[in-house]
Amino acid sequence: MFIPLHLSQTPNTYQKSTTRKASGAALVTTRKHSKDQDLKLFGTCSSPYVQRVWIALEAKDIPYQYIEVDPLRKPAAHLEINPAGPVPTLRHGNWGCSDSTVLLEYLDDLNLGIPLMPRDPCLRATARVWADHVNRAVVPAFYTVLQFSPADKTLEAVATLQDEINKMVEAADAEGPFFLGATLGHVDVVFAPWMLRCSRMLKKFRGWPDPEPGSRWERWVGAVEGCEAVRATVCGEDVYEDAFARWTQGKETEVEDGGYGVP
Amino acid sequence: MFIPLHLSQTPNTYQKSTTRKASGAALVTTRKHSKDQDLKLFGTCSSPYVQRVWIALEAKDIPYQYIEVDPLRKPAAHLEINPAGPVPTLRHGNWGCSDSTVLLEYLDDLNLGIPLMPRDPCLRATARVWADHVNRAVVPAFYTVLQFSPADKTLEAVATLQDEINKMVEAADAEGPFFLGATLGHVDVVFAPWMLRCSRMLKKFRGWPDPEPGSRWERWVGAVEGCEAVRATVCGEDVYEDAFARWTQGKETEVEDGGYGVP
Repeated sequence: MFIPLHLSQTPNTYQKSTTRKASGAALVTTRKHSKDQDLKLFGTCSSPYVQRVWIALEAKDIPYQYIEVDPLRKPAAHLEINPAGPVPTLRHGNWGCSDSTVLLEYLDDLNLGIPLMPRDPCLRATARVWADHVNRAVVPAFYTVLQFSPADKTLEAVATLQDEINKMVEAADAEGPFFLGATLGHVDVVFAPWMLRCSRMLKKFRGWPDPEPGSRWERWVGAVEGCEAVRATVCGEDVYEDAFARWTQGKETEVEDGGYGVP
Repeated sequence: MFIPLHLSQTPNTYQKSTTRKASGAALVTTRKHSKDQDLKLFGTCSSPYVQRVWIALEAKDIPYQYIEVDPLRKPAAHLEINPAGPVPTLRHGNWGCSDSTVLLEYLDDLNLGIPLMPRDPCLRATARVWADHVNRAVVPAFYTVLQFSPADKTLEAVATLQDEINKMVEAADAEGPFFLGATLGHVDVVFAPWMLRCSRMLKKFRGWPDPEPGSRWERWVGAVEGCEAVRATVCGEDVYEDAFARWTQGKETEVEDGGYGVP
């Protein structure tokens, strides 16, 4: 049974100006992974949903091909999986899927490389509950901060985002530094792209504060920022500044991933 | 690490009139599972989210205790897991969780009884994508139908619900009769409580049509209605009529499960 996993088939006629190409460490990584492979990630470097899947592939260190998608000329191998051509799309042989959270579980189910989900059923449930919290509470709160410019509304939105993050910090393993312990896991990967964008987009333009020195939050951010698999997918500042400008100018309207919180 | 999995801790002071108690086959099943067990399901028979977890427990045929929760007197063993006392809450030893979709995966991860998730990674991803579709599209569309009474708006809402269900029917295994094949699986269990309520709530009061004879949809509904694990959790018509009346009178406002689409 071949099930094309596109729930909404909008025609591939959406025209948008080309997003900024990869830069920094991400550019180096795209070059390392340009050779044809059975496992192909179709993405755009600026997309946080793409970054989730990309971090997982890097953490697992399994062979994959990264294909930067030009929105105006999506490759046939991409459109065969999903005619709408969303990013991320992961293609594995003739099968593919475009939901980043599901793809993280898929990569774990392949049992190749290090697992990102814990083995214990209780901890697996914990990871799924908090990954869902990222999707349903943290990500929407992030975009609310991004959208507001009047100072008072921004303050309120920042407080809401801090509150949703604080719930996670309180639920996290006390030692850490990652959410469930000493190593990068599912919840960290689900959250990482927006965690990185707090300092790269919200700090500069929306008054997002640095983590309090010595706090659990600071240790968590430090661990994620320092993680090799994460660093390999990070672009130069220019890409995030461009993404911020596109958002605030209302150009970034293409729904990626069907993720919550992407207007 | 003990993580209480309540994302929103509202005080347990919410007063609502008592929901109708179990009846029919569900009542028989509650009596069969009244003895103390390590695995405890705190639920109310009228809740579709509770029914998901209950069907899974029945399908797996593993020892469990069912505890019908009186909203005005929630047991300590329930509130220890989550002070807000949502239903469903599954308690397993000292650990517990209140998210029905996560709980279905948890029960599968225990590796007891028959699995509901397929083994193949691609099919697992397919199951997760469509379970998500139930949560994000089908369930909200169901409640939109339930809420409208003026005939024209109901018609439009019914068409939307049919459309969301049709996407699933088109993606389903051609033979069936269940979503992914011959046996009850994850997507069937996630959808079953609302599928059952189409004929028990929407047909009588909102003009929901019977499945077209000979259609894939008819075969699917027939298989779910005929499944022993599902039948064991079905109440008499009185419970669904009461639930419908409570919804339309705006009494059913307690958010259960944090599930999408529950206003």
